[in-house]
This record gives sequence, structure tokens and C-alpha cells, in this order.
Amino acid sequence: MSATAFMINGFDPANALNLSVDEQRLVSRRRSLLGPSYKLFYEHPVQFVRAEGVRLYDPQGNAYLDVYNNVPSVGHCHPRVVAAIAEQAARLNTHTRYLDDAVLSYAETLLATYPPEIRNVMFTCTGSEATDLALRIVRFHTRGSGIIVTENAYHGITSAAAAISPSMGPNVPIGEHVLTVAAPNPYRETGDVGQRFAGDVRAAIARFARHGIPFAGLIVDTIFSTDGILPDPAGSLRPALAAVHEAGGLFIADEVQPGFGRLGTSMWGFQRHGIVPDIVVMGKPMGNGMPIAGIAVRPELLNEFGTKVRYFSTFAANSVSIAAARAVLEVIADEGLMANATSVGAYLLESLRTVAGDVPALGDVRGAGLFVGAEFVDPETGAPDGRRALSVVNRLRERRVLISASGDAGNVLKIRPPLPFTRADVDQFVGILADVLAEQH
Amino acid sequence: MSATAFMINGFDPANALNLSVDEQRLVSRRRSLLGPSYKLFYEHPVQFVRAEGVRLYDPQGNAYLDVYNNVPSVGHCHPRVVAAIAEQAARLNTHTRYLDDAVLSYAETLLATYPPEIRNVMFTCTGSEATDLALRIVRFHTRGSGIIVTENAYHGITSAAAAISPSMGPNVPIGEHVLTVAAPNPYRETGDVGQRFAGDVRAAIARFARHGIPFAGLIVDTIFSTDGILPDPAGSLRPALAAVHEAGGLFIADEVQPGFGRLGTSMWGFQRHGIVPDIVVMGKPMGNGMPIAGIAVRPELLNEFGTKVRYFSTFAANSVSIAAARAVLEVIADEGLMANATSVGAYLLESLRTVAGDVPALGDVRGAGLFVGAEFVDPETGAPDGRRALSVVNRLRERRVLISASGDAGNVLKIRPPLPFTRADVDQFVGILADVLAEQH
Repeated sequence: MSATAFMINGFDPANALNLSVDEQRLVSRRRSLLGPSYKLFYEHPVQFVRAEGVRLYDPQGNAYLDVYNNVPSVGHCHPRVVAAIAEQAARLNTHTRYLDDAVLSYAETLLATYPPEIRNVMFTCTGSEATDLALRIVRFHTRGSGIIVTENAYHGITSAAAAISPSMGPNVPIGEHVLTVAAPNPYRETGDVGQRFAGDVRAAIARFARHGIPFAGLIVDTIFSTDGILPDPAGSLRPALAAVHEAGGLFIADEVQPGFGRLGTSMWGFQRHGIVPDIVVMGKPMGNGMPIAGIAVRPELLNEFGTKVRYFSTFAANSVSIAAARAVLEVIADEGLMANATSVGAYLLESLRTVAGDVPALGDVRGAGLFVGAEFVDPETGAPDGRRALSVVNRLRERRVLISASGDAGNVLKIRPPLPFTRADVDQFVGILADVLAEQH
Repeated sequence: MSATAFMINGFDPANALNLSVDEQRLVSRRRSLLGPSYKLFYEHPVQFVRAEGVRLYDPQGNAYLDVYNNVPSVGHCHPRVVAAIAEQAARLNTHTRYLDDAVLSYAETLLATYPPEIRNVMFTCTGSEATDLALRIVRFHTRGSGIIVTENAYHGITSAAAAISPSMGPNVPIGEHVLTVAAPNPYRETGDVGQRFAGDVRAAIARFARHGIPFAGLIVDTIFSTDGILPDPAGSLRPALAAVHEAGGLFIADEVQPGFGRLGTSMWGFQRHGIVPDIVVMGKPMGNGMPIAGIAVRPELLNEFGTKVRYFSTFAANSVSIAAARAVLEVIADEGLMANATSVGAYLLESLRTVAGDVPALGDVRGAGLFVGAEFVDPETGAPDGRRALSVVNRLRERRVLISASGDAGNVLKIRPPLPFTRADVDQFVGILADVLAEQH
């Protein structure tokens, strides 16, 4: 693990001989054209040629149930999003240094989903860029540099974002002015996890102070996706927010994973916790696959930064990405996708818990809306069992169900389908999962 | 300038009262929704509702000649690119962790435009991300941190890219391990500018060594766009490349501005200089407006980095951006856009030089292909005259010609139209420019 880049559910090129001749050729061309940094999913990588709704199709026409991809959040190739992209691309695609109503109307609609304290939005193309911009603003505003993150956090791939992403593994050093704290995990710890978490944040702040490093802020994924998917208990982020503000720091909510209605009951993960962050990072599902991301921010944070530092990104909020993003918000509203995430998510959780009742290795099933984690453990010791999770992921792939795993040990199934997932889709997924688990007994 | 963000040709909100009621409303909504970092072009900002070829249209249907936008490089809303986007968006839009032929075929076509030493490509969404990734690789590979840039360089907006972008102005500090050198400028200096430039690079490397900072590399825009557009003499980057390699550093060519055939005689700006860089940064015109960018790199630089550091960006090389990028390369080839850039660019240069012959304030006209700079000076002293350039830019905008200015003093007209620019377009542009200059006498 220390000599090579670690990736949960990554394809090992040493297994290339198990692939078809066509697949071997693609794998070998990838290696020679894109270099070794690029990793494929699965022991047996998959190839897709089209997609629709919650299914992708391989070159032979086989359908794969998508229980993983959160980017095409309103469904693969949603006709309204596709039409918006095609229409806008044919008419005008330009940048934000010309006057334009569309970007402003979208900003208004987007900000209307936020608490009233958060009144500005700035656009980027990727979540990584949004994290990076949030860091620039937080460090400028506080004149601090110290950032606190969770132990297995992932916040992006720019130099600055990678430095606050311990999940990138030992070859990507955590930044000098970065400290980590354990995410609140009611499955693994007793007592009030929110208070424990806030206590660790306070201790990290004190450590920064002792080293003469001015504190800038705390950033958390509000469902702790890479720390193992930890939604509960709702409200547990409140004490940490207070700790950050007491020390003059800022609270950044990374909503790239939980945001845009996935959690069902609220548009944003921080709302489940009853808090109002200072900056919010948005990404993946924002344009259903078109590159668009950004930050939502309290305007007082931009007064000085915005006056002294100009911001322009050529592609950020380009006309086509904005058209896609607008269609996404419309589809979420018009098709009731948040209500669907709530009800189908509850059914999914219930169905999985029924399965888990018969499988001692499934130590915990937890989730919010259509973001669910299922944790594999050694039934004797309770220790994380990443090997079993990985085996299940790969068996599911053979059964044409797409999924992956999360957590420091890679032992938590990451169940995160596009939002139009139905009860029938749940039945198909859970049925196959039950089969796979039964085979492993 | 030190209190507020400096931007050449930025709109000053203090002048909002000169705008129409509709425009004032848009300006005020922008300020309240996007915050103060967002700047508009021109004393009198423009609004567009559609575009085609080398022209954009305002809400009243007036056509503006585009002599500025290098992103829609094969022409605004090119039908082949639009069709590729629409078709792909309707079929599949996914990421690089599944097998896919399209991204590999595009990588092959793209790498075929490079010298044989450069055999790998890695994708990002923006030029900023590509610069940032290049910096990560260069610093990892060399174990160095010292980066040399030109005095008014711009390489992007991530934390790491902004730290090597002195043109962002005094409120964005240049990084601690960053030194600047003056770009080779035969209009402003005598002697062999390539040798002088290499000498300054050597001096910067020595200074790093004296401070115990291990040298990583030099990054240059191969046409020095923000340093005032400095294409000549071809070959003048050779001594600097040698200086960098002698010291064990790496040479990064930033081709975001000159790349993809704009210079006419070669696909990439570094080829005009007869050099082979270690890493090349690509961006803006790559997808004609779809967010796609990346680096091309010597494979030996990725051997260790790629093995130890995984790289994945959700949106980078998404299926739709790749489809657009492929169409762009096809259009450049099929429509002979490089030959057009060469011949129309030569005609543009000649036409501008004829005009300049009668205008003592036009101290120099220079360019390569369809990337031309026209430098305004005080005819008595030769000092840069940024005020006159800015006035010309704004008068041209009133005459519905889009252009901007470049250089530390903002005194160089930045003439950079989409590549299907015709001789008739040159005549229209130069005719209007001559009128505007005549008015100013």
C-alpha cells in the first residue's frame, strides 16, 4: 500500500489475462496513452456504450443496474437535460465577462435552496476547484492557514485540495498546516459522538495555536462519504460548528456527495444537522455530468476577498453548463426526486436491514435518503472486513449491479444510485445482493 | 491598484449610471448574487444571446465581430461540434473508470500532433487544473519546489496556479518558492533575447540554490500572452530549455493560449521554438467551449508519480467533452484552419502594419498566425501607453468589435479571433480600427 497508489475497488493490471482480447487491448492502450495514474473499477472492468435512467448498457447490450453513480443524479441522459444542453450549445456558449441573464437566474434559483444567510454563489468546473476556491477565501478572510479535516477525508485533486485529502494515501502528503480528527461514528464509538467530535476539533485548534499556526477552518463532507458514510445522528455537527466559530475559524460544508437532494429530506446535508455553514462546496450532480461546480457563501466573506482578488475561470458557468444545471434543478422539483429519495431510500434501508438480519458479517446498515452504507465486519471481533466488501462489490459487478466501497478499510458498501431509483430497482438490487451474500456463507 | 483587484479592461461599477435600465439591473443582480470578485469586460458591458462563426449577437440583433475569443476556436457554435455534443449527451456521459474507446482514440489523435517524446496525456476540466497537475508532477518528480515564471505570467486560479501567476496583482502573493524573470522582448531590449532570458533563468536557479530551495522547473506560455504577446524570435526559448535541463529541472510549456493551431505553422507554440518540453499544459480551445483541458507529458515523468499517486477527476474527459474535443481536431484538419491561421494571420499582420505606419502611437505590431499584439506607446518616450490601448478597446466595442488588451501595462491590443477568421473579417476589423485611431489624433 505504501509503494503504490491505493484505491478501493481498483483494477489490478496483473489480472489483465483474465479479460477478453478486446478488453485487454483497451487496458493496454489506456496504460500506454494515459499512463499509470489512471485506475479502472473492478477486478473485471466494465465498458459501457449507452445509458438511460438508472441503467448502463455494455457493448453486447446487457443492462447494468446503477447503484453507484451520483453524478447523473436525475438519471443518465435525462431528456430534459440533454435537450437543454443541445439547445444551448447550438445557440451560444460563452463566459461570465459578458452580461447574461441565464447565469443570474440560475444563481437565484440555486440560492433559494439555501438558508438566507448564504447569499452568494461562485462557479467553478469541478468540486476540486470549488474546494480550492473555498480554501483561498477561508485563508484570505481569516489570515489563517490551519485546516482541520476528518481522518479519511477526500476533498479534491488540486495541490491544495489533495493536501487536505488524507484518503489519497501515504504517497500524497497531508499539508503541513492540516490536522485530522476522527469522524463522528456512532457504530464504532459510544457516548455523544457530536460532543466527542467537537472536543477533537477543539484539541486540534489548540495544537495549531501551540505551534503558532493561525487557525483557518474545518471542512467536512456532511455525510462523511469517504470516512464510511456516517449520517447519524442528525444534529451531531452542531457542537463542532460552535467550536470552530468560538476560535474565529470558518466552517466549510463539502456537499459534493450529499448535496442536491440526495438525502431526501433536505437539499443539503448540513440542513439535516441544523447548522448554517460559512461556505458550501458543491459539485458532482450539479449539471448531471456537465462540468459545473461552485461554492455558496456568506456574502461578508467576499467583501474584502472579492474587492482585492478578481476571480475568473473561462469555463466556469459557461452557458451550456448553466443550461444543464438549470434543467437539473427543474427536474428535481418537477419529478419529486427528493420525495422519491426519502421514500425509496427508506425502503432501501429497510430492505437492506432485513437482509443484514441474516448476515452476521453485515455489522451495520445506515443512510439518509438515497445514500446508504452497509458495513462488513468480522462477526467475531467486529473488525472492519474490507476483503469481504470488495468481494461483494466484484460479485455484484458480475451480476451486473454497479456499486463500490468506502471507508478507511474499504469495508462499507457505498450505495448511491441516481435519484429516480424505484422500489422495483431496490428489489432487484437487494435480491441480487442477498444471493451474493448467501453464496459467501 | 493595490487596494482593489486590478483587471485590464474591467468594467467599473461606478459607471453603472451610464448603462440602460436593463443593463443596470443585470449589473446589480450580478453584484448581489455572485459577489464582487466577478468582473465584466468594457466600460459599457455587452450582452449576447446567440453566436455563430466569428460573430456574436446582442439582444437587439446587432452583430459583433469577435477578434478576441480564443475558446470557440473553430467558430462559435460550430455545427459539427454542436452535433457531437448533442449526440453524445443523449447516448452516454460517464467518467474514466469504465473502459471506453472514445477517450483512447482521442488521446491517440491528440498525441499524434506531438513530438514522439511526448506520449502520455492526462485530462482535466480547466487549464488551471492542468497547470496544477503539472506542478504536482514536476514537484514530485524532481523533489524540488522552486518554480520560475515570467514577470507578468498567468497560469491559472487554483491556489497553486495563482501562486505562479504574478499578473493576478499585488493582492495575490507570488508563492514563497517562486521567482520571476522578464520575458524575452525584442521590442524592448537589444541583443540576443533568448540568451538574456536563459541567463536570467540561470540566475534564478542559482538564487534558489543559495536559499536551499531545490529547483523544480520553468513554466512559460510559449507566446507570452499576458506579458504582452511576444512570439519572436522563433527559437529564442532554446537556451532557456538547456539552462533548465542542466540544472535538473523540468520545462513546462503552457499552450493554453497558443495551442491547437492558432499560430498557424505549428499545432503548438513550442514547436515554433524548435524545442520539446517535458510537460505541456492545454486548455481553452480544446473543446471549443466544453470544459476540457489536460497535460501532455513525457512518459518517464509518470513512471513513479503514476504508480504512487492515483489520479481521478470525475468530470475530466467525460464522454461529452471528449466528443466535442474530437470534433474540434477534425474541424481543424478538415477545414484547413491552421493554413487559414497562417495566411489570414499574415494578412492581418500586414494590414495592421500598414495602419501602424501612419500612427506613431502604435509602436509595434507582432504576431504569429492568428495571435497578434499591437503595442501602444508614447511616441516621444516609447513608454507603454495603457490608457490609449484601453480607450481603443472601448471605442472598438462601441463599433461592435470585440477585443482586449494585454501586458503588464495593458498597452498591447490582444488580437486573437476564432480561427475561421477571413480576409474580409480582417478588412472589417482593420478598417474600423483605423477609423478609431484616426478619431484619436
